Amino acid sequence: MKDLFEIIHSHRSIRKYRSDRVPEDILNKILEAGVRASSSGNMQPYSIVITSKDEIKRELLPLHFDQSMVMEAPLLITFCADFHRMRRWIELSQAPENFDNFMSFLIGMIDATLVSQTVALAAEAEGLGICYMGTTLASNQEISQVLKLPKHVVPVVGFSLGYPAESPEKRDRLPMSGIIHRETYQDYTDQEIQAIYSEKEIKGMARYQSVPELREMILQHNAENLAQVYTKVKYTQESHIEYSKNVMNCLINQGFL
Amino acid sequence: MKDLFEIIHSHRSIRKYRSDRVPEDILNKILEAGVRASSSGNMQPYSIVITSKDEIKRELLPLHFDQSMVMEAPLLITFCADFHRMRRWIELSQAPENFDNFMSFLIGMIDATLVSQTVALAAEAEGLGICYMGTTLASNQEISQVLKLPKHVVPVVGFSLGYPAESPEKRDRLPMSGIIHRETYQDYTDQEIQAIYSEKEIKGMARYQSVPELREMILQHNAENLAQVYTKVKYTQESHIEYSKNVMNCLINQGFL
Repeated sequence: MKDLFEIIHSHRSIRKYRSDRVPEDILNKILEAGVRASSSGNMQPYSIVITSKDEIKRELLPLHFDQSMVMEAPLLITFCADFHRMRRWIELSQAPENFDNFMSFLIGMIDATLVSQTVALAAEAEGLGICYMGTTLASNQEISQVLKLPKHVVPVVGFSLGYPAESPEKRDRLPMSGIIHRETYQDYTDQEIQAIYSEKEIKGMARYQSVPELREMILQHNAENLAQVYTKVKYTQESHIEYSKNVMNCLINQGFL
Repeated sequence: MKDLFEIIHSHRSIRKYRSDRVPEDILNKILEAGVRASSSGNMQPYSIVITSKDEIKRELLPLHFDQSMVMEAPLLITFCADFHRMRRWIELSQAPENFDNFMSFLIGMIDATLVSQTVALAAEAEGLGICYMGTTLASNQEISQVLKLPKHVVPVVGFSLGYPAESPEKRDRLPMSGIIHRETYQDYTDQEIQAIYSEKEIKGMARYQSVPELREMILQHNAENLAQVYTKVKYTQESHIEYSKNVMNCLINQGFL
Protein backbone atom coordinates (compact mmCIF):
# COMPACT_ATOMS: atom_id res chain seq x y z
CA MET A 1 0.00 0.00 0.00
CA LYS A 2 1.15 3.53 -0.80
CA ASP A 3 2.20 5.68 2.15
CA LEU A 4 -0.08 8.53 3.20
CA PHE A 5 1.91 11.23 1.42
CA GLU A 6 1.84 9.27 -1.86
CA ILE A 7 -1.93 8.83 -1.47
CA ILE A 8 -2.44 12.54 -0.78
CA HIS A 9 -0.24 13.63 -3.69
CA SER A 10 -1.90 11.11 -6.05
CA HIS A 11 -5.33 12.64 -5.45
CA ARG A 12 -7.27 13.52 -8.59
CA SER A 13 -10.99 14.24 -8.73
CA ILE A 14 -12.45 11.27 -10.64
CA ARG A 15 -15.52 11.92 -12.79
CA LYS A 16 -15.48 8.73 -14.92
CA TYR A 17 -15.91 5.34 -13.28
CA ARG A 18 -15.71 1.68 -14.18
CA SER A 19 -18.99 -0.18 -13.70
CA ASP A 20 -17.48 -2.46 -10.98
CA ARG A 21 -19.32 -2.25 -7.68
CA VAL A 22 -17.53 -1.24 -4.48
CA PRO A 23 -17.21 -4.42 -2.36
CA GLU A 24 -19.12 -4.22 0.94
CA ASP A 25 -16.04 -5.06 3.04
CA ILE A 26 -14.05 -2.21 1.47
CA LEU A 27 -16.95 0.21 1.87
CA ASN A 28 -17.25 -0.72 5.54
CA LYS A 29 -13.49 -0.44 6.04
CA ILE A 30 -13.34 3.12 4.69
CA LEU A 31 -16.47 4.23 6.59
CA GLU A 32 -15.14 2.78 9.85
CA ALA A 33 -11.92 4.68 9.24
CA GLY A 34 -13.92 7.86 8.65
CA VAL A 35 -15.61 7.92 12.05
CA ARG A 36 -12.21 7.88 13.78
CA ALA A 37 -11.90 11.56 12.77
CA SER A 38 -12.01 14.06 15.65
CA SER A 39 -15.50 15.07 16.73
CA SER A 40 -16.52 18.02 18.89
CA GLY A 41 -17.19 16.68 22.41
CA ASN A 42 -17.15 13.23 20.76
CA MET A 43 -20.82 13.84 19.89
CA GLN A 44 -20.52 12.57 16.30
CA PRO A 45 -23.33 14.86 15.12
CA TYR A 46 -23.41 13.52 11.55
CA SER A 47 -25.00 10.84 9.41
CA ILE A 48 -23.72 9.27 6.20
CA VAL A 49 -26.18 8.36 3.46
CA ILE A 50 -24.97 5.84 0.86
CA THR A 51 -26.99 5.90 -2.34
CA SER A 52 -26.64 3.22 -5.02
CA LYS A 53 -30.12 2.76 -6.54
CA ASP A 54 -30.74 4.27 -9.95
CA GLU A 55 -34.21 5.50 -9.02
CA ILE A 56 -32.83 7.69 -6.22
CA LYS A 57 -29.75 8.78 -8.19
CA ARG A 58 -32.10 9.89 -10.97
CA GLU A 59 -33.87 12.19 -8.51
CA LEU A 60 -30.52 13.53 -7.29
CA LEU A 61 -29.16 14.05 -10.83
CA PRO A 62 -30.68 17.50 -11.55
CA LEU A 63 -29.86 18.62 -7.97
CA HIS A 64 -26.22 17.80 -8.75
CA PHE A 65 -26.56 19.88 -11.94
CA ASP A 66 -26.82 16.85 -14.27
CA GLN A 67 -23.23 15.69 -13.81
CA SER A 68 -23.06 12.32 -15.58
CA MET A 69 -21.01 10.76 -12.79
CA VAL A 70 -24.09 10.87 -10.54
CA MET A 71 -25.55 8.00 -12.57
CA GLU A 72 -22.25 6.38 -13.57
CA ALA A 73 -20.50 6.16 -10.20
CA PRO A 74 -21.59 3.04 -8.29
CA LEU A 75 -22.10 5.05 -5.09
CA LEU A 76 -22.93 8.57 -3.96
CA ILE A 77 -22.07 9.40 -0.38
CA THR A 78 -23.81 12.31 1.32
CA PHE A 79 -22.37 13.51 4.64
CA CYS A 80 -24.96 15.35 6.74
CA ALA A 81 -24.79 17.44 9.89
CA ASP A 82 -27.17 15.47 12.15
CA PHE A 83 -28.41 16.55 15.57
CA HIS A 84 -31.73 14.73 15.10
CA ARG A 85 -30.30 11.48 16.49
CA MET A 86 -28.66 13.15 19.49
CA ARG A 87 -31.75 15.27 20.26
CA ARG A 88 -33.86 12.10 20.30
CA TRP A 89 -31.43 10.60 22.86
CA ILE A 90 -31.49 13.82 24.91
CA GLU A 91 -35.29 13.75 24.97
CA LEU A 92 -35.38 10.09 26.02
CA SER A 93 -32.86 10.97 28.78
CA GLN A 94 -35.00 13.81 30.20
CA ALA A 95 -32.15 16.24 29.54
CA PRO A 96 -32.67 19.93 28.62
CA GLU A 97 -32.87 20.41 24.87
CA ASN A 98 -30.20 22.09 22.72
CA PHE A 99 -28.51 21.82 19.34
CA ASP A 100 -31.31 23.50 17.36
CA ASN A 101 -29.25 26.62 16.57
CA PHE A 102 -26.70 27.98 14.09
CA MET A 103 -23.65 27.03 16.19
CA SER A 104 -24.84 23.44 16.41
CA PHE A 105 -25.29 23.27 12.64
CA LEU A 106 -21.75 24.55 12.10
CA ILE A 107 -20.32 22.02 14.58
CA GLY A 108 -22.15 19.24 12.73
CA MET A 109 -20.94 20.63 9.42
CA ILE A 110 -17.30 20.64 10.53
CA ASP A 111 -17.50 17.15 12.01
CA ALA A 112 -19.21 15.75 8.89
CA THR A 113 -16.49 17.32 6.73
CA LEU A 114 -13.67 15.87 8.87
CA VAL A 115 -15.26 12.44 8.38
CA SER A 116 -15.73 12.97 4.64
CA GLN A 117 -12.08 13.81 4.05
CA THR A 118 -10.96 10.83 6.13
CA VAL A 119 -13.24 8.53 4.13
CA ALA A 120 -11.99 10.11 0.88
CA LEU A 121 -8.35 9.42 1.72
CA ALA A 122 -9.16 5.90 2.94
CA ALA A 123 -11.02 5.27 -0.33
CA GLU A 124 -8.06 6.48 -2.36
CA ALA A 125 -5.76 4.23 -0.33
CA GLU A 126 -7.95 1.33 -1.51
CA GLY A 127 -7.62 2.31 -5.17
CA LEU A 128 -11.03 3.99 -5.35
CA GLY A 129 -11.65 7.45 -6.79
CA ILE A 130 -13.88 10.26 -5.54
CA CYS A 131 -15.14 13.62 -6.71
CA TYR A 132 -16.62 16.10 -4.25
CA MET A 133 -19.88 17.74 -5.35
CA GLY A 134 -20.35 21.30 -4.11
CA THR A 135 -23.94 20.91 -5.28
CA THR A 136 -24.57 18.90 -2.09
CA LEU A 137 -24.58 22.24 -0.27
CA ALA A 138 -26.07 24.39 -3.04
CA SER A 139 -29.07 22.03 -3.42
CA ASN A 140 -29.26 20.90 0.19
CA GLN A 141 -32.93 21.79 0.61
CA GLU A 142 -34.04 19.59 -2.27
CA ILE A 143 -31.53 16.81 -1.45
CA SER A 144 -32.97 16.71 2.09
CA GLN A 145 -36.34 15.85 0.58
CA VAL A 146 -35.02 13.14 -1.74
CA LEU A 147 -33.00 11.52 1.05
CA LYS A 148 -35.96 11.89 3.46
CA LEU A 149 -33.91 13.72 6.07
CA PRO A 150 -35.78 14.62 9.25
CA LYS A 151 -35.54 18.04 10.93
CA HIS A 152 -32.03 18.83 12.30
CA VAL A 153 -30.31 16.89 9.51
CA VAL A 154 -28.68 18.89 6.68
CA PRO A 155 -26.49 17.65 3.78
CA VAL A 156 -23.14 19.47 3.76
CA VAL A 157 -20.63 17.59 1.60
CA GLY A 158 -20.82 14.62 -0.71
CA PHE A 159 -18.86 12.76 -3.31
CA SER A 160 -19.17 10.10 -5.98
CA LEU A 161 -17.25 6.89 -5.30
CA GLY A 162 -16.04 4.06 -7.49
CA TYR A 163 -13.10 2.62 -9.39
CA PRO A 164 -11.53 5.22 -11.71
CA ALA A 165 -11.93 4.92 -15.47
CA GLU A 166 -9.75 7.97 -16.11
CA SER A 167 -6.44 9.32 -14.85
CA PRO A 168 -6.58 13.11 -15.04
CA GLU A 169 -3.52 15.28 -14.69
CA LYS A 170 -2.53 16.71 -11.33
CA ARG A 171 -4.24 20.07 -10.79
CA ASP A 172 -2.34 23.28 -10.15
CA ARG A 173 -2.22 24.79 -6.67
CA LEU A 174 -1.39 28.28 -5.49
CA PRO A 175 2.17 28.67 -4.16
CA MET A 176 2.41 27.91 -0.43
CA SER A 177 3.71 31.42 0.22
CA GLY A 178 0.29 32.72 -0.85
CA ILE A 179 -1.57 30.56 1.66
CA ILE A 180 0.60 30.32 4.77
CA HIS A 181 0.82 33.19 7.25
CA ARG A 182 3.31 33.23 10.11
CA GLU A 183 2.09 34.39 13.56
CA THR A 184 -0.63 36.66 12.15
CA TYR A 185 -2.16 37.40 8.73
CA GLN A 186 0.32 39.07 6.40
CA ASP A 187 -1.68 41.07 3.89
CA TYR A 188 -0.68 41.12 0.23
CA THR A 189 0.57 43.88 -2.04
CA ASP A 190 -0.92 44.07 -5.55
CA GLN A 191 2.32 42.66 -6.91
CA GLU A 192 2.16 39.71 -4.51
CA ILE A 193 -1.43 38.98 -5.55
CA GLN A 194 -0.40 38.96 -9.22
CA ALA A 195 2.53 36.65 -8.46
CA ILE A 196 0.39 34.25 -6.40
CA TYR A 197 -2.12 33.86 -9.22
CA SER A 198 0.26 34.00 -12.21
CA GLU A 199 0.67 30.23 -12.72
CA LYS A 200 -3.04 29.62 -12.07
CA GLU A 201 -3.93 32.27 -14.67
CA ILE A 202 -2.09 30.32 -17.38
CA LYS A 203 -2.94 26.75 -16.33
CA GLY A 204 -6.53 27.48 -15.35
CA MET A 205 -7.28 29.41 -18.53
CA ALA A 206 -5.72 26.64 -20.67
CA ARG A 207 -7.82 24.05 -18.86
CA TYR A 208 -11.10 25.88 -19.37
CA GLN A 209 -10.27 26.73 -23.00
CA SER A 210 -9.75 23.01 -23.64
CA VAL A 211 -13.39 22.15 -22.75
CA PRO A 212 -15.58 23.02 -25.80
CA GLU A 213 -18.69 24.08 -23.81
CA LEU A 214 -16.61 26.24 -21.48
CA ARG A 215 -14.67 27.79 -24.37
CA GLU A 216 -18.02 28.72 -25.95
CA MET A 217 -19.20 30.35 -22.70
CA ILE A 218 -15.90 32.19 -22.25
CA LEU A 219 -16.38 33.74 -25.71
CA GLN A 220 -20.05 34.45 -25.06
CA HIS A 221 -19.34 36.27 -21.79
CA ASN A 222 -16.29 37.99 -23.19
CA ALA A 223 -14.16 36.70 -20.29
CA GLU A 224 -10.66 37.99 -20.90
CA ASN A 225 -8.83 36.40 -18.00
CA LEU A 226 -9.25 33.62 -15.44
CA ALA A 227 -10.73 35.84 -12.72
CA GLN A 228 -13.39 36.92 -15.23
CA VAL A 229 -14.06 33.26 -16.08
CA TYR A 230 -14.65 32.64 -12.38
CA THR A 231 -17.07 35.49 -11.77
CA LYS A 232 -18.70 36.00 -15.21
CA VAL A 233 -19.03 32.33 -16.21
CA LYS A 234 -18.52 29.82 -13.38
CA TYR A 235 -19.67 31.62 -10.24
CA THR A 236 -21.75 34.73 -10.76
CA GLN A 237 -22.75 36.84 -7.81
CA GLU A 238 -26.44 36.23 -8.65
CA SER A 239 -25.97 32.46 -8.50
CA HIS A 240 -24.11 32.67 -5.19
CA ILE A 241 -26.78 34.93 -3.69
CA GLU A 242 -29.40 32.44 -4.88
CA TYR A 243 -27.49 29.51 -3.29
CA SER A 244 -27.06 31.53 -0.10
CA LYS A 245 -30.84 31.92 0.11
CA ASN A 246 -31.39 28.20 -0.59
CA VAL A 247 -29.00 27.16 2.14
CA MET A 248 -30.48 29.68 4.62
CA ASN A 249 -33.97 28.37 3.85
CA CYS A 250 -32.76 24.83 4.36
CA LEU A 251 -31.29 25.78 7.76
CA ILE A 252 -34.60 27.43 8.73
CA ASN A 253 -36.69 24.47 7.53
CA GLN A 254 -34.39 21.92 9.18
CA GLY A 255 -34.61 23.76 12.49
CA PHE A 256 -31.12 25.29 12.83
CA LEU A 257 -32.07 28.97 12.42
CA MET B 1 5.82 4.43 8.09
CA LYS B 2 2.42 3.19 9.24
CA ASP B 3 -0.19 2.65 6.55
CA LEU B 4 -3.09 5.10 6.34
CA PHE B 5 -5.55 2.85 8.20
CA GLU B 6 -3.11 2.41 11.07
CA ILE B 7 -2.61 6.18 11.22
CA ILE B 8 -6.35 6.81 11.23
CA HIS B 9 -7.05 4.18 13.90
CA SER B 10 -4.14 5.42 16.06
CA HIS B 11 -5.63 8.93 16.25
CA ARG B 12 -5.95 10.36 19.75
CA SER B 13 -6.49 14.02 20.59
CA ILE B 14 -3.23 15.13 22.21
CA ARG B 15 -3.42 17.82 24.88
CA LYS B 16 0.06 17.40 26.44
CA TYR B 17 3.15 18.07 24.37
CA ARG B 18 6.91 17.68 24.62
CA SER B 19 8.78 20.98 24.36
CA ASP B 20 10.55 19.93 21.11
CA ARG B 21 9.91 22.25 18.21
CA VAL B 22 8.34 21.01 14.99
CA PRO B 23 11.13 21.01 12.37
CA GLU B 24 10.47 23.40 9.48
CA ASP B 25 10.86 20.70 6.82
CA ILE B 26 8.25 18.50 8.50
CA LEU B 27 5.91 21.45 8.96
CA ASN B 28 6.26 22.32 5.27
CA LYS B 29 5.78 18.70 4.24
CA ILE B 30 2.46 18.35 6.09
CA LEU B 31 1.17 21.75 4.91
CA GLU B 32 2.05 20.95 1.29
CA ALA B 33 0.17 17.68 1.69
CA GLY B 34 -2.83 19.61 3.08
CA VAL B 35 -3.35 21.82 0.04
CA ARG B 36 -3.70 18.74 -2.19
CA ALA B 37 -7.18 18.30 -0.66
CA SER B 38 -10.08 18.88 -3.06
CA SER B 39 -11.14 22.51 -3.40
CA SER B 40 -14.35 23.89 -4.89
CA GLY B 41 -13.56 25.10 -8.42
CA ASN B 42 -9.91 24.77 -7.37
CA MET B 43 -10.24 28.26 -5.85
CA GLN B 44 -8.44 27.38 -2.59
CA PRO B 45 -10.42 29.98 -0.64
CA TYR B 46 -8.54 29.49 2.62
CA SER B 47 -5.51 30.69 4.54
CA ILE B 48 -3.49 28.91 7.21
CA VAL B 49 -2.09 30.89 10.13
CA ILE B 50 0.77 29.26 12.07
CA THR B 51 1.27 30.74 15.52
CA SER B 52 4.32 29.95 17.65
CA LYS B 53 5.13 33.14 19.59
CA ASP B 54 4.19 33.23 23.25
CA GLU B 55 2.94 36.80 23.08
CA ILE B 56 0.30 35.91 20.48
CA LYS B 57 -0.57 32.57 22.10
CA ARG B 58 -1.15 34.46 25.35
CA GLU B 59 -3.75 36.63 23.59
CA LEU B 60 -5.37 33.52 22.11
CA LEU B 61 -5.38 31.62 25.43
CA PRO B 62 -8.63 33.03 26.90
CA LEU B 63 -10.31 32.80 23.48
CA HIS B 64 -9.51 29.08 23.55
CA PHE B 65 -11.07 28.89 27.04
CA ASP B 66 -7.71 28.78 28.87
CA GLN B 67 -6.75 25.30 27.69
CA SER B 68 -3.16 24.84 28.85
CA MET B 69 -2.10 23.23 25.55
CA VAL B 70 -2.46 26.63 23.86
CA MET B 71 0.76 27.73 25.61
CA GLU B 72 2.41 24.29 25.81
CA ALA B 73 2.02 23.11 22.22
CA PRO B 74 4.83 24.46 20.03
CA LEU B 75 2.36 25.47 17.30
CA LEU B 76 -1.25 26.50 16.89
CA ILE B 77 -2.66 26.23 13.40
CA THR B 78 -5.74 28.24 12.48
CA PHE B 79 -7.50 27.37 9.20
CA CYS B 80 -9.54 30.25 7.85
CA ALA B 81 -12.10 30.61 5.08
CA ASP B 82 -10.43 33.31 2.94
CA PHE B 83 -12.00 35.09 -0.02
CA HIS B 84 -10.02 38.26 0.65
CA ARG B 85 -7.07 37.06 -1.44
CA MET B 86 -9.23 35.92 -4.35
CA ARG B 87 -11.36 39.10 -4.28
CA ARG B 88 -8.16 41.19 -4.51
CA TRP B 89 -7.15 39.18 -7.61
CA ILE B 90 -10.67 39.59 -9.09
CA GLU B 91 -10.49 43.34 -8.56
CA LEU B 92 -7.02 43.55 -10.14
CA SER B 93 -8.40 41.53 -13.08
CA GLN B 94 -11.35 43.90 -13.67
CA ALA B 95 -13.74 41.00 -13.09
CA PRO B 96 -17.22 41.40 -11.55
CA GLU B 97 -17.09 41.00 -7.78
CA ASN B 98 -18.52 38.05 -5.83
CA PHE B 99 -17.78 35.83 -2.84
CA ASP B 100 -19.06 38.28 -0.21
CA ASN B 101 -22.06 36.16 0.73
CA PHE B 102 -23.11 33.26 2.98
CA MET B 103 -22.61 30.57 0.30
CA SER B 104 -19.05 31.75 -0.30
CA PHE B 105 -18.28 31.59 3.41
CA LEU B 106 -19.58 28.00 3.59
CA ILE B 107 -17.52 26.99 0.55
CA GLY B 108 -14.42 28.47 2.19
CA MET B 109 -15.31 26.77 5.46
CA ILE B 110 -15.62 23.34 3.82
CA ASP B 111 -12.40 23.75 1.85
CA ALA B 112 -10.47 24.93 4.93
CA THR B 113 -11.78 21.91 6.86
CA LEU B 114 -10.77 19.47 4.11
CA VAL B 115 -7.27 20.93 4.29
CA SER B 116 -7.17 20.80 8.10
CA GLN B 117 -8.03 17.11 8.24
CA THR B 118 -5.46 16.30 5.56
CA VAL B 119 -2.80 18.24 7.50
CA ALA B 120 -3.90 16.49 10.72
CA LEU B 121 -3.46 13.01 9.22
CA ALA B 122 -0.15 13.99 7.59
CA ALA B 123 1.04 15.30 10.98
CA GLU B 124 0.08 12.05 12.70
CA ALA B 125 1.90 10.09 9.99
CA GLU B 126 5.00 12.05 11.02
CA GLY B 127 4.59 11.15 14.71
CA LEU B 128 3.09 14.50 15.67
CA GLY B 129 -0.09 14.91 17.71
CA ILE B 130 -2.98 17.32 17.29
CA CYS B 131 -6.07 18.42 19.18
CA TYR B 132 -8.85 20.29 17.40
CA MET B 133 -10.18 23.35 19.23
CA GLY B 134 -13.88 24.04 18.67
CA THR B 135 -13.20 27.39 20.31
CA THR B 136 -11.69 28.48 16.96
CA LEU B 137 -15.25 28.82 15.72
CA ALA B 138 -16.90 29.88 19.00
CA SER B 139 -14.42 32.76 19.46
CA ASN B 140 -13.86 33.51 15.79
CA GLN B 141 -14.69 37.22 16.10
CA GLU B 142 -12.00 37.83 18.73
CA ILE B 143 -9.49 35.46 17.11
CA SER B 144 -9.90 37.44 13.85
CA GLN B 145 -8.70 40.52 15.72
CA VAL B 146 -5.70 38.82 17.34
CA LEU B 147 -4.61 37.25 14.04
CA LYS B 148 -5.24 40.57 12.22
CA LEU B 149 -7.55 38.97 9.65
CA PRO B 150 -8.87 41.36 6.98
CA LYS B 151 -12.50 41.40 5.86
CA HIS B 152 -13.63 38.17 4.11
CA VAL B 153 -11.32 36.01 6.24
CA VAL B 154 -12.91 33.95 9.07
CA PRO B 155 -11.31 31.32 11.36
CA VAL B 156 -13.22 28.04 11.13
CA VAL B 157 -11.11 25.20 12.54
CA GLY B 158 -7.81 24.99 14.35
CA PHE B 159 -5.62 22.63 16.29
CA SER B 160 -2.58 22.49 18.51
CA LEU B 161 0.42 20.67 17.04
CA GLY B 162 3.52 19.11 18.53
CA TYR B 163 5.14 15.89 19.70
CA PRO B 164 2.88 13.98 22.14
CA ALA B 165 3.77 13.79 25.83
CA GLU B 166 0.80 11.55 26.59
CA SER B 167 -0.85 8.49 25.05
CA PRO B 168 -4.55 8.65 25.88
CA GLU B 169 -6.87 5.69 25.39
CA LYS B 170 -8.82 5.27 22.19
CA ARG B 171 -12.20 7.04 22.47
CA ASP B 172 -15.52 5.31 22.07
CA ARG B 173 -17.53 5.75 18.89
CA LEU B 174 -21.19 5.15 18.17
CA PRO B 175 -21.91 1.85 16.36
CA MET B 176 -21.74 2.21 12.57
CA SER B 177 -25.36 1.05 12.30
CA GLY B 178 -26.36 4.27 14.08
CA ILE B 179 -24.55 6.49 11.58
CA ILE B 180 -24.88 4.85 8.16
CA HIS B 181 -28.11 5.04 6.17
CA ARG B 182 -28.68 3.03 3.00
CA GLU B 183 -30.30 4.79 0.02
CA THR B 184 -32.25 7.29 2.17
CA TYR B 185 -32.38 8.25 5.86
CA GLN B 186 -33.76 5.45 8.02
CA ASP B 187 -35.27 7.05 11.10
CA TYR B 188 -34.78 5.48 14.52
CA THR B 189 -37.19 3.89 16.98
CA ASP B 190 -36.81 4.81 20.67
CA GLN B 191 -35.30 1.38 21.25
CA GLU B 192 -32.76 1.90 18.48
CA ILE B 193 -31.76 5.27 19.94
CA GLN B 194 -31.21 3.68 23.35
CA ALA B 195 -29.13 0.88 21.79
CA ILE B 196 -27.01 3.30 19.72
CA TYR B 197 -26.09 5.34 22.81
CA SER B 198 -25.85 2.49 25.37
CA GLU B 199 -22.07 1.99 25.19
CA LYS B 200 -21.45 5.75 25.04
CA GLU B 201 -23.63 6.24 28.14
CA ILE B 202 -21.34 3.97 30.19
CA LYS B 203 -17.94 4.94 28.73
CA GLY B 204 -18.70 8.66 28.46
CA MET B 205 -20.07 8.93 31.99
CA ALA B 206 -17.07 7.00 33.40
CA ARG B 207 -14.73 9.35 31.54
CA TYR B 208 -16.34 12.51 32.85
CA GLN B 209 -16.63 11.12 36.40
CA SER B 210 -12.88 10.48 36.35
CA VAL B 211 -12.04 14.18 35.92
CA PRO B 212 -12.35 15.86 39.37
CA GLU B 213 -13.59 19.26 38.10
CA LEU B 214 -16.16 17.61 35.85
CA ARG B 215 -17.31 15.24 38.62
CA GLU B 216 -17.88 18.30 40.81
CA MET B 217 -19.94 20.00 38.07
CA ILE B 218 -21.95 16.84 37.42
CA LEU B 219 -22.94 16.77 41.10
CA GLN B 220 -23.61 20.50 41.16
CA HIS B 221 -25.94 20.33 38.14
CA ASN B 222 -27.50 17.10 39.30
CA ALA B 223 -26.78 15.48 35.94
CA GLU B 224 -28.06 11.93 36.19
CA ASN B 225 -27.01 10.57 32.83
CA LEU B 226 -24.65 11.37 29.95
CA ALA B 227 -27.22 13.28 27.90
CA GLN B 228 -27.79 15.52 30.94
CA VAL B 229 -24.03 16.02 31.27
CA TYR B 230 -23.97 17.18 27.65
CA THR B 231 -26.80 19.70 27.90
CA LYS B 232 -26.72 20.75 31.58
CA VAL B 233 -22.92 20.90 32.02
CA LYS B 234 -20.90 20.84 28.79
CA TYR B 235 -23.13 22.47 26.18
CA THR B 236 -26.04 24.47 27.51
CA GLN B 237 -28.56 25.94 25.12
CA GLU B 238 -27.72 29.45 26.42
CA SER B 239 -24.03 28.99 25.60
CA HIS B 240 -24.80 27.67 22.11
CA ILE B 241 -27.19 30.56 21.42
CA GLU B 242 -24.46 32.92 22.58
CA TYR B 243 -21.87 31.28 20.28
CA SER B 244 -24.38 31.37 17.42
CA LYS B 245 -24.68 35.14 17.87
CA ASN B 246 -20.89 35.55 18.05
CA VAL B 247 -20.37 33.61 14.83
CA MET B 248 -23.19 35.48 13.06
CA ASN B 249 -21.66 38.79 14.15
CA CYS B 250 -18.28 37.66 12.89
CA LEU B 251 -19.80 36.77 9.50
CA ILE B 252 -21.46 40.19 9.33
CA ASN B 253 -18.29 42.03 10.37
CA GLN B 254 -16.11 40.02 8.00
CA GLY B 255 -18.45 40.77 5.08
CA PHE B 256 -20.10 37.41 4.46
CA LEU B 257 -23.64 38.32 5.59
